[in-house]
Amino acid sequence: MRTIDINSDLGESFGNWKMGDDEAVIPEITTANVACGFHASDPVTMLDTVRLCRQNGVAVGAHPGLPDLLGFGRRTMAITPDDAYAYVLYQAGALQGILKTLGESLHHIKPHGAMYSIVHSDADLAEPVAQAIADFGMDQMLYWPAPTDAALPTAAKKHGIRVVGEIYPDLDYRPDGTLILQRAKHETDVEMAYRKVRRWLAEGVLEALDGTPIAVDAESVCIHGDGPNALEVVRAARRAIEDAGCRVGPVDAAVPAAS
Amino acid sequence: MRTIDINSDLGESFGNWKMGDDEAVIPEITTANVACGFHASDPVTMLDTVRLCRQNGVAVGAHPGLPDLLGFGRRTMAITPDDAYAYVLYQAGALQGILKTLGESLHHIKPHGAMYSIVHSDADLAEPVAQAIADFGMDQMLYWPAPTDAALPTAAKKHGIRVVGEIYPDLDYRPDGTLILQRAKHETDVEMAYRKVRRWLAEGVLEALDGTPIAVDAESVCIHGDGPNALEVVRAARRAIEDAGCRVGPVDAAVPAAS
Amino acid sequence: MRTIDINSDLGESFGNWKMGDDEAVIPEITTANVACGFHASDPVTMLDTVRLCRQNGVAVGAHPGLPDLLGFGRRTMAITPDDAYAYVLYQAGALQGILKTLGESLHHIKPHGAMYSIVHSDADLAEPVAQAIADFGMDQMLYWPAPTDAALPTAAKKHGIRVVGEIYPDLDYRPDGTLILQRAKHETDVEMAYRKVRRWLAEGVLEALDGTPIAVDAESVCIHGDGPNALEVVRAARRAIEDAGCRVGPVDAAVPAAS
Amino acid sequence: MRTIDINSDLGESFGNWKMGDDEAVIPEITTANVACGFHASDPVTMLDTVRLCRQNGVAVGAHPGLPDLLGFGRRTMAITPDDAYAYVLYQAGALQGILKTLGESLHHIKPHGAMYSIVHSDADLAEPVAQAIADFGMDQMLYWPAPTDAALPTAAKKHGIRVVGEIYPDLDYRPDGTLILQRAKHETDVEMAYRKVRRWLAEGVLEALDGTPIAVDAESVCIHGDGPNALEVVRAARRAIEDAGCRVGPVDAAVPAAS
Repeated sequence: MRTIDINSDLGESFGNWKMGDDEAVIPEITTANVACGFHASDPVTMLDTVRLCRQNGVAVGAHPGLPDLLGFGRRTMAITPDDAYAYVLYQAGALQGILKTLGESLHHIKPHGAMYSIVHSDADLAEPVAQAIADFGMDQMLYWPAPTDAALPTAAKKHGIRVVGEIYPDLDYRPDGTLILQRAKHETDVEMAYRKVRRWLAEGVLEALDGTPIAVDAESVCIHGDGPNALEVVRAARRAIEDAGCRVGPVDAAVPAAS
Repeated sequence: MRTIDINSDLGESFGNWKMGDDEAVIPEITTANVACGFHASDPVTMLDTVRLCRQNGVAVGAHPGLPDLLGFGRRTMAITPDDAYAYVLYQAGALQGILKTLGESLHHIKPHGAMYSIVHSDADLAEPVAQAIADFGMDQMLYWPAPTDAALPTAAKKHGIRVVGEIYPDLDYRPDGTLILQRAKHETDVEMAYRKVRRWLAEGVLEALDGTPIAVDAESVCIHGDGPNALEVVRAARRAIEDAGCRVGPVDAAVPAAS
Repeated sequence: MRTIDINSDLGESFGNWKMGDDEAVIPEITTANVACGFHASDPVTMLDTVRLCRQNGVAVGAHPGLPDLLGFGRRTMAITPDDAYAYVLYQAGALQGILKTLGESLHHIKPHGAMYSIVHSDADLAEPVAQAIADFGMDQMLYWPAPTDAALPTAAKKHGIRVVGEIYPDLDYRPDGTLILQRAKHETDVEMAYRKVRRWLAEGVLEALDGTPIAVDAESVCIHGDGPNALEVVRAARRAIEDAGCRVGPVDAAVPAAS
Repeated sequence: MRTIDINSDLGESFGNWKMGDDEAVIPEITTANVACGFHASDPVTMLDTVRLCRQNGVAVGAHPGLPDLLGFGRRTMAITPDDAYAYVLYQAGALQGILKTLGESLHHIKPHGAMYSIVHSDADLAEPVAQAIADFGMDQMLYWPAPTDAALPTAAKKHGIRVVGEIYPDLDYRPDGTLILQRAKHETDVEMAYRKVRRWLAEGVLEALDGTPIAVDAESVCIHGDGPNALEVVRAARRAIEDAGCRVGPVDAAVPAAS
């Protein structure tokens, strides 16, 4: 029986400011990407989030971003390879420190926002990020939108890092398989999200905005936790996975990728 | 042959702003307390500092502080027990993440500035900090100015944490053994620092500002890395230790405290 | 016809994080206390807030706080008199800079959170804040919870600053007239808020939690914009003022205080 | 008698971290560009700096930067036109607030680091910055490296803002008149700096790195305050101006530009 993971970006509150409905979303997912204090979150938010994840059996990965709270890590910044390397180790380490409260370890790393955009195409910055993930520890996995042929997953594979492909049922795709990112979160068409996941599970393809079918090899479904109807979309994805005869469950680092 | 450790607060630069002369001090000491980005330092400064420590065989501990870059962590803030717990795990974890670049582990934890002052006397905040050190890992040691009977070392001992006492030859003591902290760093009398260390090694006592002898059980000598003549003071301490027939070397977590 | 002002703390969002429902509250009030980037807000949030205030004829005052975004300025910090003086001038100036977009000037200054608590009782810090308000400009008013006999309003009056007393229908009072501050915002009893404002307008007294009547001389009613039913409370206050035969309108610096 | 201004970037310390030797440089210059807390400086540093400027008769301008303390405002960030507009008004206003301590007004605005680079070439961001300077007040001047034909000075002139051209004797020029910026500050050849200023005053030209003469119409000489021999370079510039029979003095907003 095929296992499909559902991951979501969480722990994005900051001090008194709340973002997302983590308490509602966490029970529905299997893996969380937790912000680490650079673009969102803070030590106490991280602590609250990992405790909630633990109570719900949700695996915790790091969601490192650029040091730009004001811009929520979504503004490209001209960082150096040394910056990229140290920012990832610092943030992954900080979350790992918080996870000590549970006696647990980091499950994976997934770059956030403009950090993601930068290492998508810039090989000189992707390499130190891959090195950081490799240095952080052997079991570390990289989550990345499928197809996983961008600069960072390519560099990561060379370092022997297990790359977990994801599909995004709440985003549109270009015909070349790249995602169309959105700044302002709009309501997601829940039925369309359901159909996307079903078709992908049945045929291994997603449909681009212009109808082009894109072959996508993935193990996880990513839902944005801060969308206005995030909870419904998560539930639709869960239903689609179960209706397709698959099991909803986290990615196991010990099991090699299918492809 | 008795081994005495020399530790210093390092890695206190921030971005373009430099503080201390780490390159000169590190070769003379055996243990470093590295700032973790809350009151000073940043990921790249931490990376540079741990690399320099490694090249010189210097053990690396975390120097967690309050989240107040502008005040250099020296301004008391009304934090909660949850804050205290999470701030220590976050900062220790972040430095541990950076240490992965060397395949090394954190040697100890030592609170900085107002974080130190708070857990010196407030048992309600000392307890979560002790819990954080205990949760962070079994081998973790706490560095603390001797005599180690303040709130945090007392709580730490209950958690089975090895507490390493330090003496401060560049600070004055009150007759009750507490340190007289200084905001503005002045030049230290190098000869007096030498004599303090010699007398302490010979007789186990330090002299308070009023001449009162204070019995002090310690394993490490702490020198402030940002004093105007820090390097000379470090060298005087090193000379005093060697002239007393002792060896300068790091504290070994595997060896139980002498007392 | 007596004019009563309604003021509210606004512009407390930060980057992507939203707080309060400023768009709904602003049309109902006459004066806004706008956060200035130290404990909340940022330049673009301030710009959006002052534009919204302008469209609704709402006067804009500064709500300076401690430099602690993570703690929302609610954690006491050990600042110096120089800090207090410079923090107020910096924040008031920054908001005044943003107000230039409208060709308008700052209406008043009102300390936020722990900055308020500090200058409530510490005369050594109240004096530089009063000096900062005086130096900022002659027309500047200070908003302060009545009775206005705490350290800051006392110092401000000596500097010739017009002090505007406020009542807080969504907070409880101690018999000595001091406010019982709350960290977690609860729902306010709207009818009780209405009755408080009516009784105060009719008899000049508020009732403490234990029933003690407190004589309160004030010109403004303050409603917290981030309470769960802030909008209803604002409307109840407005209704109470109008039902009492008074006019809802901003405090005019040119008119001397009534008392 | 021709008057030539000497300006320098100052007030770049942050909390406990010191940068530059403002106490030595300020007595030698006529105009200061003071950092405003986004890339460097803080309210107390700004207060200390403007007081020192006042004591030495030095005019104070704002040196607004990007919100990136860690990168000292030297890393390009993808900001929006609204960001650019609000960042300039906020920072100029904050410094103007601090200047109230002296009863003085802001002399000019000069963008720092990556903020400068962005508005050098991006007209969509230059326009809101020009608008911010215009909205800030009629007497405001813009300082800009001559020749002043980049995006921001061009937009500023359309808004009726007086643009003050500067020459940089401690930087090299490309044949097209643009500056070759340096990250790491090196020692400046003091004699060459002297000769550059003399030739420019005599012939109105500077020499590019390849020897090409560049006609440069300017009123001010800018010296970087954080260079290792900044003080000597400032003094050489001062000597060159006086040896050329000119007077060292600030730019007067009331006097129209010569050209």
